[in-house]
Amino acid sequence: MKPEEHPLHRLFNPESIAVVGASRNPRKIGHIILRNILEAGYRGRVYPVNPNADRILGLRAYPRLTDIPEPVDVAIVAVPAEKVLGVAEDAGRRGVGFLVVISSGFSEVGRRELEEKLVSIARRYGFRVLGPNVAGYLYTPARLNATFGPPRVLEGNIAFVTQSGAFAIALMGATLIEAIGVSAIISVGNKADLDEADLLDYLGVDEHTRVVLHYLEWLRDGRRFLRVLERVAASKPVVVIKAGRSGAGARAAASHTGRLAGSYRVYVSALRQSGALIAKSMEEAFDAAKALAWNPLPEPEKPEEFNVLVVTNGGGAGIQAVDTLEERGVRVREAPESLRGEYARLLPPFASTRNPVDLTGMAPAEWFYEAVRIALRSDWVDALLVLYTQTGLSGPVETAKAILDALRDEGHSKPITVALLGGPECLHAARLLTRNRVPAYPTPERAAAALSFVAEYAWRRWYLREKAGGG
Amino acid sequence: MKPEEHPLHRLFNPESIAVVGASRNPRKIGHIILRNILEAGYRGRVYPVNPNADRILGLRAYPRLTDIPEPVDVAIVAVPAEKVLGVAEDAGRRGVGFLVVISSGFSEVGRRELEEKLVSIARRYGFRVLGPNVAGYLYTPARLNATFGPPRVLEGNIAFVTQSGAFAIALMGATLIEAIGVSAIISVGNKADLDEADLLDYLGVDEHTRVVLHYLEWLRDGRRFLRVLERVAASKPVVVIKAGRSGAGARAAASHTGRLAGSYRVYVSALRQSGALIAKSMEEAFDAAKALAWNPLPEPEKPEEFNVLVVTNGGGAGIQAVDTLEERGVRVREAPESLRGEYARLLPPFASTRNPVDLTGMAPAEWFYEAVRIALRSDWVDALLVLYTQTGLSGPVETAKAILDALRDEGHSKPITVALLGGPECLHAARLLTRNRVPAYPTPERAAAALSFVAEYAWRRWYLREKAGGG
Repeated sequence: MKPEEHPLHRLFNPESIAVVGASRNPRKIGHIILRNILEAGYRGRVYPVNPNADRILGLRAYPRLTDIPEPVDVAIVAVPAEKVLGVAEDAGRRGVGFLVVISSGFSEVGRRELEEKLVSIARRYGFRVLGPNVAGYLYTPARLNATFGPPRVLEGNIAFVTQSGAFAIALMGATLIEAIGVSAIISVGNKADLDEADLLDYLGVDEHTRVVLHYLEWLRDGRRFLRVLERVAASKPVVVIKAGRSGAGARAAASHTGRLAGSYRVYVSALRQSGALIAKSMEEAFDAAKALAWNPLPEPEKPEEFNVLVVTNGGGAGIQAVDTLEERGVRVREAPESLRGEYARLLPPFASTRNPVDLTGMAPAEWFYEAVRIALRSDWVDALLVLYTQTGLSGPVETAKAILDALRDEGHSKPITVALLGGPECLHAARLLTRNRVPAYPTPERAAAALSFVAEYAWRRWYLREKAGGG
Repeated sequence: MKPEEHPLHRLFNPESIAVVGASRNPRKIGHIILRNILEAGYRGRVYPVNPNADRILGLRAYPRLTDIPEPVDVAIVAVPAEKVLGVAEDAGRRGVGFLVVISSGFSEVGRRELEEKLVSIARRYGFRVLGPNVAGYLYTPARLNATFGPPRVLEGNIAFVTQSGAFAIALMGATLIEAIGVSAIISVGNKADLDEADLLDYLGVDEHTRVVLHYLEWLRDGRRFLRVLERVAASKPVVVIKAGRSGAGARAAASHTGRLAGSYRVYVSALRQSGALIAKSMEEAFDAAKALAWNPLPEPEKPEEFNVLVVTNGGGAGIQAVDTLEERGVRVREAPESLRGEYARLLPPFASTRNPVDLTGMAPAEWFYEAVRIALRSDWVDALLVLYTQTGLSGPVETAKAILDALRDEGHSKPITVALLGGPECLHAARLLTRNRVPAYPTPERAAAALSFVAEYAWRRWYLREKAGGG
């Protein structure tokens, strides 16, 4: 399906947005959302709705949705819960396509019937609801930021769908410090109507999204989500953080959303079988997303023979990385003789070339350049992990440049992750790599874990395709 | 034992140091080490040794160790492996106390007999050897930096003993970006003579060290290390990263050091029984070290009833933290009625007070202040985890200040870790906390994992003391 034909296309690419509950008070959520829509550079029409103001942030305000003279694709609603049903009726009469209900005070505090009424109004008029109890949503290709988070985020091609609105807002800020560019961030809240399955279905066809990340607490219709997941995961990686791994965590999830989180193991094994990559923490999920979004994703014919080569200038870093890869199911095999020979010509005789290839603490930046080139040219190597621990002999920025040069000269044809362990210059070097879409991390373990997601995706996709092909 | 009476006291507090292989060439390791010793502000006497120079870095140089007219406590050796035995003979004649052999090319490349000869010379003359194949060592209380890493590190009370010299150098830089202050960093290299047991024995009595971290690949005399560990761990936390968790990692360790790493499980269970806290990654180890070094360490009478209270302004963050604590064996129990009542008076009626205490997304900084004070005053709470996800309603810096104010007003009498999830201001807020020795982390999972080490230490110490008391 083309994105334009998808029923959610107008949600992500609206020609007009109304903000109900828009306010002149800069502390109010209705003000912050309107300001974000304007500051992020959204180019469609914007209608503040407020019965007590003529103009808000320079725009003409309307008393009610029904007073807006033109069609409204999306209405963002930030009014007290009690007033939401009235707004929904107005939205239906105005022919709004999507109602995004920021307001809280629904099923999450036990008021389930209020939420059911909201949905029945939507069904009656034929519009869809995101929420209630959401932090909003954003979609960078449309320059659309309808959230109460910060106005600017880093653009990119990672989409994040989250049941925690706080995570949505926090990630918006974190995109800037972690240099994780996003295509979309969607807070799904109580998901009275639209849920993860609907959103994943759209993001699956969205050409601006390369990786989808879900933070999940519970699913209303698990089977439906798994069906969509299986289809999407065959063409792009879907990373899931499933909350409630422990009994106490599941209880905490229940008090957060008023729902049971379900058995973690049951969820996770079903998600995995449908192609999801499971992350246990936010850090792991975002580390993985970078590696998946910025690398070519390998399609090995025999995924069980997937080979990762580890290149390091420190033995300890190499061991930590190998341990991490192996623990995550990625075998680190001894490199074949021919490849070892190529490295042996580059390195001093005491350097190990088995895999990890130990460039030794004497390695200048040029050895990193050569070592990466050799790996990119080798038929044996499917993916590459480069580990640098700071030494006096090659600075981190020099080393990062050498890695970038090798990728430029040989082509970024294989997945690669890089760890730079050391002082403040390592942060600069990591930023340099990141700006060039080479995923860089502060420790060998994190770079290894991120690369293991790339390997796992190769297996899961292979399996999904075999299954589809065989069926 | 007092530190002054310990046989290694002079290694850490030398009155004079010679650098054999000191050089005027700023690219040479012998130059970098000499320069670091001078720049770090060491106040003892320093003697460059080089047969081809009269003065190096403004100091009078001596052709040989035996030419130095005064006693030499420590001689750092950075000459080719072939010349080390001659230097060792000179050291013996000069009456040097400790020989720190930076030079590589010994057992790690299969030249074991060269190393044995070095040790036999040391035994004959009665001096001790650190190394060979080390990156050097540093001890901030003596302003001593005899490494080829960066000249400055952040001072503090975490000691790091590592079999990977690269990790030693990398950590020196990382102290600055992670704000992890160190008392000592010691690269043990091939540990032909002095090993982890000797160093831990000293660090155990060193009053400037509150936490000891070991990066271990193999142990020559495991029993001896366990004996020392058991004694030290009864009074200060010892965190161990044991390399070679996987078969491939163990093989990589073997090519790194020329030794077998041994069964990971056997090692780890023995280490745990002797009181070690096991970390799986560098990040986890340093996260734990901060939490252990900067917090009061609880001594519960019934460690099985240890209670962690989680305070959060985001439900999702709370769940992730609870899952992490529980996975690591820390039970997150429902708070008692009386405590819940105190939080209920502070919070809106729909906020959960069970544990996690959910301050909700509406929480201003004052609620964090009150929530932390309540927890510090509560008899039920043994340790506190505070989670902040960035919102428009309370900024990260305000929130950090509120937490610091509460700790000032009630006293930092219980262990606490803080997570700040969000944009660039969260980094500033984390630095503010860190400068005040409140451990802060970028994600709920990392703050929870770090706090779990504090809880685990309480249990391990209780067990060691019971065992000692019962014996």
